Amino acid sequence: MLGVCYYPEHWPETMWADDAREMAELGLKYVRIGEFAWSRLESSPGVFHFDWLDRAIETLASAGLKVIMCTPTATPPKWLIDLYPDILPVDIKTGTVRGFGSRRHCDFSSENYRRESMRISEVLAKRYGQHPAICGWQTDNEIACHDTAHSGSHNAKVAFQRWCEARYGDVDTLNSAWGNVFWSMEYQTFGQIELPMLAVTETSPAHQLAYRRFSSDMVVKFHDEMVDIIRAHAPNQFVTHNFIPMHDTQTDNFALSKKLDFVSYDNYPLGRTDLFFADAPTAQFKKYMRTGHPDFSSYAFDQSRGISNRGFWVMEQQPGPVNWARHNPRPEAGMVRLWSWQAFAHGAEAVCYFRWRQVPFAQEQMHAGIKRTDNSRAAAHQEVAQVRDELKLLAPFTEHFNGDLATLPLQAKVAIVMTTENQWVTEIERQGDSFNQHQVEFSWYSALRQLGLAVDFVSPAHDLTPYQLVIAPCMPIVSPAFVERCKATSATLVFGPRSGAKTAELSAVPNLGPGLLQQLIDVKVLSTETIRPDCYAELLLNGDQTSYQSSRWREELAPGAQVAILAKDEYQQPAVVQQGKVVYVGTLSCEGFLIALFRQLATQLGLPVWQLGSDLRTMQRGELQFVFNYGATAQQFVAPANAEFIIGSSTLQPYDVAVLRLS
Amino acid sequence: MLGVCYYPEHWPETMWADDAREMAELGLKYVRIGEFAWSRLESSPGVFHFDWLDRAIETLASAGLKVIMCTPTATPPKWLIDLYPDILPVDIKTGTVRGFGSRRHCDFSSENYRRESMRISEVLAKRYGQHPAICGWQTDNEIACHDTAHSGSHNAKVAFQRWCEARYGDVDTLNSAWGNVFWSMEYQTFGQIELPMLAVTETSPAHQLAYRRFSSDMVVKFHDEMVDIIRAHAPNQFVTHNFIPMHDTQTDNFALSKKLDFVSYDNYPLGRTDLFFADAPTAQFKKYMRTGHPDFSSYAFDQSRGISNRGFWVMEQQPGPVNWARHNPRPEAGMVRLWSWQAFAHGAEAVCYFRWRQVPFAQEQMHAGIKRTDNSRAAAHQEVAQVRDELKLLAPFTEHFNGDLATLPLQAKVAIVMTTENQWVTEIERQGDSFNQHQVEFSWYSALRQLGLAVDFVSPAHDLTPYQLVIAPCMPIVSPAFVERCKATSATLVFGPRSGAKTAELSAVPNLGPGLLQQLIDVKVLSTETIRPDCYAELLLNGDQTSYQSSRWREELAPGAQVAILAKDEYQQPAVVQQGKVVYVGTLSCEGFLIALFRQLATQLGLPVWQLGSDLRTMQRGELQFVFNYGATAQQFVAPANAEFIIGSSTLQPYDVAVLRLS
Amino acid sequence: MLGVCYYPEHWPETMWADDAREMAELGLKYVRIGEFAWSRLESSPGVFHFDWLDRAIETLASAGLKVIMCTPTATPPKWLIDLYPDILPVDIKTGTVRGFGSRRHCDFSSENYRRESMRISEVLAKRYGQHPAICGWQTDNEIACHDTAHSGSHNAKVAFQRWCEARYGDVDTLNSAWGNVFWSMEYQTFGQIELPMLAVTETSPAHQLAYRRFSSDMVVKFHDEMVDIIRAHAPNQFVTHNFIPMHDTQTDNFALSKKLDFVSYDNYPLGRTDLFFADAPTAQFKKYMRTGHPDFSSYAFDQSRGISNRGFWVMEQQPGPVNWARHNPRPEAGMVRLWSWQAFAHGAEAVCYFRWRQVPFAQEQMHAGIKRTDNSRAAAHQEVAQVRDELKLLAPFTEHFNGDLATLPLQAKVAIVMTTENQWVTEIERQGDSFNQHQVEFSWYSALRQLGLAVDFVSPAHDLTPYQLVIAPCMPIVSPAFVERCKATSATLVFGPRSGAKTAELSAVPNLGPGLLQQLIDVKVLSTETIRPDCYAELLLNGDQTSYQSSRWREELAPGAQVAILAKDEYQQPAVVQQGKVVYVGTLSCEGFLIALFRQLATQLGLPVWQLGSDLRTMQRGELQFVFNYGATAQQFVAPANAEFIIGSSTLQPYDVAVLRLS
Repeated sequence: MLGVCYYPEHWPETMWADDAREMAELGLKYVRIGEFAWSRLESSPGVFHFDWLDRAIETLASAGLKVIMCTPTATPPKWLIDLYPDILPVDIKTGTVRGFGSRRHCDFSSENYRRESMRISEVLAKRYGQHPAICGWQTDNEIACHDTAHSGSHNAKVAFQRWCEARYGDVDTLNSAWGNVFWSMEYQTFGQIELPMLAVTETSPAHQLAYRRFSSDMVVKFHDEMVDIIRAHAPNQFVTHNFIPMHDTQTDNFALSKKLDFVSYDNYPLGRTDLFFADAPTAQFKKYMRTGHPDFSSYAFDQSRGISNRGFWVMEQQPGPVNWARHNPRPEAGMVRLWSWQAFAHGAEAVCYFRWRQVPFAQEQMHAGIKRTDNSRAAAHQEVAQVRDELKLLAPFTEHFNGDLATLPLQAKVAIVMTTENQWVTEIERQGDSFNQHQVEFSWYSALRQLGLAVDFVSPAHDLTPYQLVIAPCMPIVSPAFVERCKATSATLVFGPRSGAKTAELSAVPNLGPGLLQQLIDVKVLSTETIRPDCYAELLLNGDQTSYQSSRWREELAPGAQVAILAKDEYQQPAVVQQGKVVYVGTLSCEGFLIALFRQLATQLGLPVWQLGSDLRTMQRGELQFVFNYGATAQQFVAPANAEFIIGSSTLQPYDVAVLRLS
Repeated sequence: MLGVCYYPEHWPETMWADDAREMAELGLKYVRIGEFAWSRLESSPGVFHFDWLDRAIETLASAGLKVIMCTPTATPPKWLIDLYPDILPVDIKTGTVRGFGSRRHCDFSSENYRRESMRISEVLAKRYGQHPAICGWQTDNEIACHDTAHSGSHNAKVAFQRWCEARYGDVDTLNSAWGNVFWSMEYQTFGQIELPMLAVTETSPAHQLAYRRFSSDMVVKFHDEMVDIIRAHAPNQFVTHNFIPMHDTQTDNFALSKKLDFVSYDNYPLGRTDLFFADAPTAQFKKYMRTGHPDFSSYAFDQSRGISNRGFWVMEQQPGPVNWARHNPRPEAGMVRLWSWQAFAHGAEAVCYFRWRQVPFAQEQMHAGIKRTDNSRAAAHQEVAQVRDELKLLAPFTEHFNGDLATLPLQAKVAIVMTTENQWVTEIERQGDSFNQHQVEFSWYSALRQLGLAVDFVSPAHDLTPYQLVIAPCMPIVSPAFVERCKATSATLVFGPRSGAKTAELSAVPNLGPGLLQQLIDVKVLSTETIRPDCYAELLLNGDQTSYQSSRWREELAPGAQVAILAKDEYQQPAVVQQGKVVYVGTLSCEGFLIALFRQLATQLGLPVWQLGSDLRTMQRGELQFVFNYGATAQQFVAPANAEFIIGSSTLQPYDVAVLRLS
Repeated sequence: MLGVCYYPEHWPETMWADDAREMAELGLKYVRIGEFAWSRLESSPGVFHFDWLDRAIETLASAGLKVIMCTPTATPPKWLIDLYPDILPVDIKTGTVRGFGSRRHCDFSSENYRRESMRISEVLAKRYGQHPAICGWQTDNEIACHDTAHSGSHNAKVAFQRWCEARYGDVDTLNSAWGNVFWSMEYQTFGQIELPMLAVTETSPAHQLAYRRFSSDMVVKFHDEMVDIIRAHAPNQFVTHNFIPMHDTQTDNFALSKKLDFVSYDNYPLGRTDLFFADAPTAQFKKYMRTGHPDFSSYAFDQSRGISNRGFWVMEQQPGPVNWARHNPRPEAGMVRLWSWQAFAHGAEAVCYFRWRQVPFAQEQMHAGIKRTDNSRAAAHQEVAQVRDELKLLAPFTEHFNGDLATLPLQAKVAIVMTTENQWVTEIERQGDSFNQHQVEFSWYSALRQLGLAVDFVSPAHDLTPYQLVIAPCMPIVSPAFVERCKATSATLVFGPRSGAKTAELSAVPNLGPGLLQQLIDVKVLSTETIRPDCYAELLLNGDQTSYQSSRWREELAPGAQVAILAKDEYQQPAVVQQGKVVYVGTLSCEGFLIALFRQLATQLGLPVWQLGSDLRTMQRGELQFVFNYGATAQQFVAPANAEFIIGSSTLQPYDVAVLRLS
């Protein structure tokens, strides 16, 4: 299914009906509205204006469209800020109040913000919770973006003190858990506890981790309360939230998504690639600047599916140049279609484009839409139309799956274990400037995808028995329960560096890394070094003549006698070791090494791998196989025997898509 | 005419007479004094000390020198700050008060600062406005430098609210103009309006533009009031102001200069080159580090002439290494002479050197003067003497122009349209990190100068009929009146990217870019992309085999049937289009492309162009032609037949000057 | 002698006895304890807990260990901060309070901090000043690190005003000394004086220098008072302090060390190399990342010896990867031994390792110890054992020196004159972005060391007659007394650029640079330029065909007739000049030039120089010669005839040490 984001309040009411009609013609079924509209819905305290919204919904419904309603809590209006100035958050890096004038100027620790947010949500839910044209709700918008999970306000400090009291019970327990004896940081009462900000030098890692957990809990609590309010009044409408990339939420994503029907994701491949690969050299950067990295959207899609309670939605799909990255190129012709199909291939139930028409004013006036500011059709328009038509081609092949692409099964045999908590650990304790947890996780994911392997992202609480290969690229904190789940699976388990090295309170484990994982593999991490990426050591994989690179994070491993050495560095030191089904990787490496290692492991497990090169990607859902060419030259895809091309052919043009039915 | 900046209060009175005598011997006619001397003129509220200043003026006058008096308002003394702490400005990036201890610690929104500044100005004007030794006045000093046009103070907020009320009349008009419906940024009263600072993420472009206009208006209002006061008491003395580079004033330069007799400019070629070309690679940087870029001073000179009501002055000319750039090289021997002649060639009436003698104390003790701290002669001394002598050589040839070099005509056939407002637009809405409006404008100017073309800078309100080629490198906001002026001229008009794309309130124009300019050329900008400079596309100019570069800002053009395509990119997309006399350039490019394009256009117009290479430059005023060699090797200049060399010869030594009389 | 840093409060008391026993077995004699333990010693105002500390001392003493006690004043506990919030310092860059949560959250201008620090110091000194197991005291910890010599608090402002009054007597003297007439910065009363912070642009250099002197005086005064208190109660125990690198203290190091028995230094070769050579290209950076630069520790050792009243101690020696640099590599195997011997070779009396056991919690949990967190032996353990055993080998050869290595004579013939004041001058007045005083000083030192020359660091107040070569790499402020000491020595004197150029109040000297040094050599600095390092000029040394580089800081020299020119630049301008025993170097240069110049001078003086290359280093103490191989390949060291190898041989393995007895 396709959809679109629409802001009727941005346009003359005379345009609404034509917009609705044209949306329907373009195959768009869902229209998201109401986001950011607080000042138009409530012009002063208690003075509501629903007439325009009622008419907008009616207009859309008349065209056969389904409406997704939003709570407008990302943009509290000026009169509310003036009533309750404590709604404004405080920058933890500077101690300065973050003022009104953009969005997300709100502090999750402000009781006034919470109460007012729930009030407006309830007003909306009561009014529209039974409305036949409303199919569901989006809570807030991109919660915690612009680094707003964190605030350094007085409210935040008091709330943090209470959170600490609830977690640790008494202050001596907290002092002990945080190691406050070090540098005389001991507290006598919870009321003495400071936020970990503006100190002379770094604050205690445990203190920082507690603050991150607290901040995340505040976000989740706020969000859960909003979901409950909507559900109370809209029992038959779905509730979702549009996530930013998982590594940017600063919130436990599994917790945040728990009460939702499903997760939505806002997909901006070019903007994200620009930021994520900011330091890439010219040739590499240029290769992806108009396509995005082939695995970056998939990475987000698979993560979204992983935290969702069913398939996910793309709530905002980039349709052209955006306005917020360092540079904002146009997509190559075909990419909007490709990204749409990529989403469906990875489990999307719906793809909604942001936005219907480029807005001529305010902050996002340089952000493309499906239509231009003058109401002419932008480049994306015909690509959306093509997706609309191609979706129909698949209908016959999804019949026994309820006729709905979303119901096609997606059975990955490979899982990556991810936790926000462990991201926090690596951000708090960098140890080397070039350790970046989500770049590490992404490079492991990308290596798997270059082999054509489908990947699930799972939480440590997830059952691991359905998988043949389970990978934890970086998981310093592991729980005993997780170790039990590892024991319970027959999958090969691969742990990256730092795994198991930390307690739940971010101390070193008592038995050296990988800590509890020593129950699975007899190896100890004797010491750790971090080195500049350009000062790498050679890395050699058994049975492979290639010289790879070991750099950034390198561990000194002491494997037991039963442990095999899979790779060594140029000093003949063990770098990757294996005991039975468990592999421990004691170094960061170049991507080529990861591909070679995973190819060996997958081959041993009988998992089929592909020789895709840098541009081709493939994904299987049920009996359908999707193939994507991210490259600027045509590529041949050798289809399995008896496969039938439904869309495209074995020659994929640049930026082309093919869909096969396997028999 | 030559002059010098002098601070008698920095030196023992016993030195004054010798200084005056030596100045006169060196051919210096003007001496600027009184700048920054507030604490010496008024030691506490109302306690004045004019005796020393009277004696200083008398001493200078006795040596035949003319004095330029300054208002000392750039340096309010400590007692004034202590009386009125609200004089101190607030940093808009941090919200922190910018304290006492240097200069320009003043807020144009402070009523106390305004009143006190006018008071001291009036006291001075009354005392010296009829003084026979005083030929004129300099207001303040380098107004708005150190980013002081902007303040984030409470006074500034209140003044901004009033300014908004005056501009928009009612708050709904403001909300509509700024697009405040986006993100619920709507205000109910003017008193709610915030300054666009310290928000969570970017504030509305329209809000930012309004704040820039307000800040500029505050500077102009302050300055105009000061000019009026001086004029009231000194009706027969000129009033000028010493400008910093136009792109640094953050003020509408045409408005700021309006009431002045003429504009002055502070010319520091090496310091400015160091900052402007900070990212240049070694060879390029080294080439210019001791000469400055050949076009950089000319750029400032031509701009100064453009905003001046007659010829301009150089009020401060760099005489040796300065102290404030990242690196501060010595000028090559000959450059002080060259820069002086360059100023005269571009329309200067006078060149004053900064400063007479290097001061041994305080912030500028490493800033060279004509004399060293020990009173010996610095390297510049003999170069100034040479200029003095050479000026005499020209006297015979300027006789029918009143004997004064300043009266020589300077008739450019090429004009660049510049507006501070459009600089603001591009700073507010960067869209790509590598878009820099004044680097763009400079590169277009430099391309013209490398062809030997004389250039006027004009405001959009200027009559365009005197020109054959009118160029707007980047002009997002155009008015209907400007379009009429374009229609009224027979000149070829060249518009750079972004031209016409925005309304006066920084929204997208309703008919796509180039907006109103579509009345002149039938082209639409369908979309815009920004790309990293190193990721450029090939750019091909009709009739030229060279492969140029299209990068940073690239527009998708849809030309009408009557429109010719002058250049395409490697995707065969139109990059430069022409209809009749109007050319639209839809991309930023390398400098070589601009030179090639302008050569084609100038040749078509019959404008004579030169093959100057990177080091030679030439400029014609009346019947005199000036030639400059910026390079480290001797250069041949092929003079027109019948031309007569007054200074120099057709072989220009390194850093040499020649002046020819054309017949 | 060897020792170790230990924190009994970090470990269960049940471990203490085993720890003590194992320390003794490892040859460790000294144990430093009590640092940072304030919250455990005084849990609330006046409530003391010494029982645990008594038992810890007893346990250590029982194993034969000597204890060094610390004052815990670097970590005032939370209850103290809550009682006296003015203890917290204010960041001079932002004006923000630097809060509780790490260490050194204290303002030397806070009377409350001073009084409370002296109170806890006295309580400890009274209790342990006669304790037989306590051999000495360490004051505070790494005083002024984390840039804490400076505070922008109200207390600091008031204290600075008083300091100014004491220094200048009346405000007119101050105005004159600072050149406040410039920019009307004149004060009428001392109470008006601001701290040089948060001004609109740079504040006066003299103002900044006064503030640095004041800040240094506050640190010294605080520290001196603490030393006096300890001495009063512990007359028979030594008092030392553990310094960070001299260029980081922001304090006059000679003044700070004056009352100490001896100076200690905290030696972290890898962390410091990582920071000091942050911009080094790959090959150079990689070469040293696991060894540290061969001269960096020596540089610190020789400086420490220079400011010490006798031999120095290494109080903290890096034993493995640390946690605080940008990247934290492991040392090459052998380096802990090498660094230990390097310290002894350069005059250390004792080397103490930081820390006994890696702590599993809080900020330094990734900082290696001699033992790992699980109590197993880290890599350093066996290297310490090797040093223990090798020290015994030397005992016979130190007998006539009291059997103690520390008493071996170390007679350098080369001295470098260093002053913190001149470092401040160059930090305040950079003039070029690439002038870095301590990198300059280090490069001159390293050039001497690559020639095998032993170097003393001396203050300008030091007698210069014992030396043959005295070098002042950068000494803008010189006193008449220093000039007299220069005259009194027969040593060759080499002055680097900027020497003598400034008065004591950071004004230009009246007679141009090198100011008073013109009494020694007839040269004047006519002008100064700074240039980007990559834009260097050629530099040619007489009698040497190599083309060296002159860059960053270049002076225009006017030598008198009696002055010889030793080196010229590519413009044939004199770069290095000599008159009699005095050499003036008017440029910064590449390292190769310094080596060549010093080789010429040393050879002329009959000082023996070595051809060591980049990896070998040597040092002589008494009749012992130490040789070090910092390189990754074996090196031959050609020993003098009749020399006898006590440790090692003429073939030094990678990272190896040899000790010879000369006869």
